[in-house]
Amino acid sequence: MTIVCSPIGIIYSPYGSPEGTPIQPVYSKGVQGRVEIFPDYRAGLADLEGFSHIHLIYFMHRVEGFSLTCTPFLDTRTHGIFATRAPRRPNPIGFSVVELLGIDGGILTIGGVDIVDGTPLLDIKPYVPDFDVRLQVKTGWYEHAENRSQVIADNRFVLTDKKKSDSDADV
Amino acid sequence: MTIVCSPIGIIYSPYGSPEGTPIQPVYSKGVQGRVEIFPDYRAGLADLEGFSHIHLIYFMHRVEGFSLTCTPFLDTRTHGIFATRAPRRPNPIGFSVVELLGIDGGILTIGGVDIVDGTPLLDIKPYVPDFDVRLQVKTGWYEHAENRSQVIADNRFVLTDKKKSDSDADV
Repeated sequence: MTIVCSPIGIIYSPYGSPEGTPIQPVYSKGVQGRVEIFPDYRAGLADLEGFSHIHLIYFMHRVEGFSLTCTPFLDTRTHGIFATRAPRRPNPIGFSVVELLGIDGGILTIGGVDIVDGTPLLDIKPYVPDFDVRLQVKTGWYEHAENRSQVIADNRFVLTDKKKSDSDADV
Repeated sequence: MTIVCSPIGIIYSPYGSPEGTPIQPVYSKGVQGRVEIFPDYRAGLADLEGFSHIHLIYFMHRVEGFSLTCTPFLDTRTHGIFATRAPRRPNPIGFSVVELLGIDGGILTIGGVDIVDGTPLLDIKPYVPDFDVRLQVKTGWYEHAENRSQVIADNRFVLTDKKKSDSDADV
C-alpha cells in the first residue's frame, strides 16, 4: 500500500540546510519564518487567525533514506528511531508547534521555526491544549539525556557521499 | 510534486467506522487499542517503552475527498478546514496522543484511542512535554464553541452516495 500526498504550501525559514537548524521550536524562540499556502487551498485558512499556536505537518524533503536506530542530538546513546524525534525516519513526516503571528492573504508569518527553508507543507491543525497537552507523563531516555546542550542540529543526519558508502545499516 | 509514504503498521481499535468514534483521545479514556508494527520496522521501537505517551501519525483511510470549510463537531458555525481538526482535509493525515500501555514484540497496547479500526500508521514519535506543551495560547473559535458536548463523531464527514451527489463544493 502506498499513500500519496500533495503539498498545500511551502515553509520558508532562515535555515538553508539541516545542519545549523534548531532541533525543536522551543530552541528557536524569536526566529520568524513564513508559510505560503497555494491559492487553491487558501479558503481553508478561514478563522485560523484566532489561534496563537498551530501544528505544521510537513515532509522533510532534505532527508534521504532512513535508519531504524540513531543517536539523537540530545543524547550520547543509541535508541530506536520511533523513540526519538530524529529526521531520518521511514516516513520523514515532521511536525512543529509554531506561533502564528499573522495571516495576510495566503501568507502566514510564524515564530519559533525549526524547519528547513523550502519544506513542503502537508497540513495545518490548530493547537488546542485540551487535546494536545499531557502533563503527567514519563519520557524514558529523555529524562536522563546526556547531551542536553546540543539544541542545534549538526550534520549527523545529512548523508554525505562518504557517509552514504559507509552506511550499510541504513535503508 | 507528489509525496509517497508507506505504512509502518496498522492501528486496531473498537471503532469499526468513523461514525461513533470519539473525536479526540481525551474523549476516549480507558478505551484500548493496539498497533501492529510490520516486522521490517520493529527495530525502530527500541527504548520506546520508557515513554508513557506517544504521538501516532496516520493516514485516515476512510476519508474520501476534502472540503476547505466545515462545521466541526464541537461548534455550530462553519470554519476553514485548517482552523479545525476535522478529517476531510486535503491530506487526511491524523495525529493522536495516546497512552502507551505496553509493547510485546511488534505489538503496542495503547489507551485513549480515537482512531478507526484498520488505520494505516505512518510514524510514531515520543511525546515530550518540553517540546509539545504550550499553555499560554489563544484558541480562537474553540474558546466559544457552541456544541462542546458532541465528543463522539456523527456521520457528517462520511460521504454517503446521496451526499456525494450533493457535494458540489467538495473536492
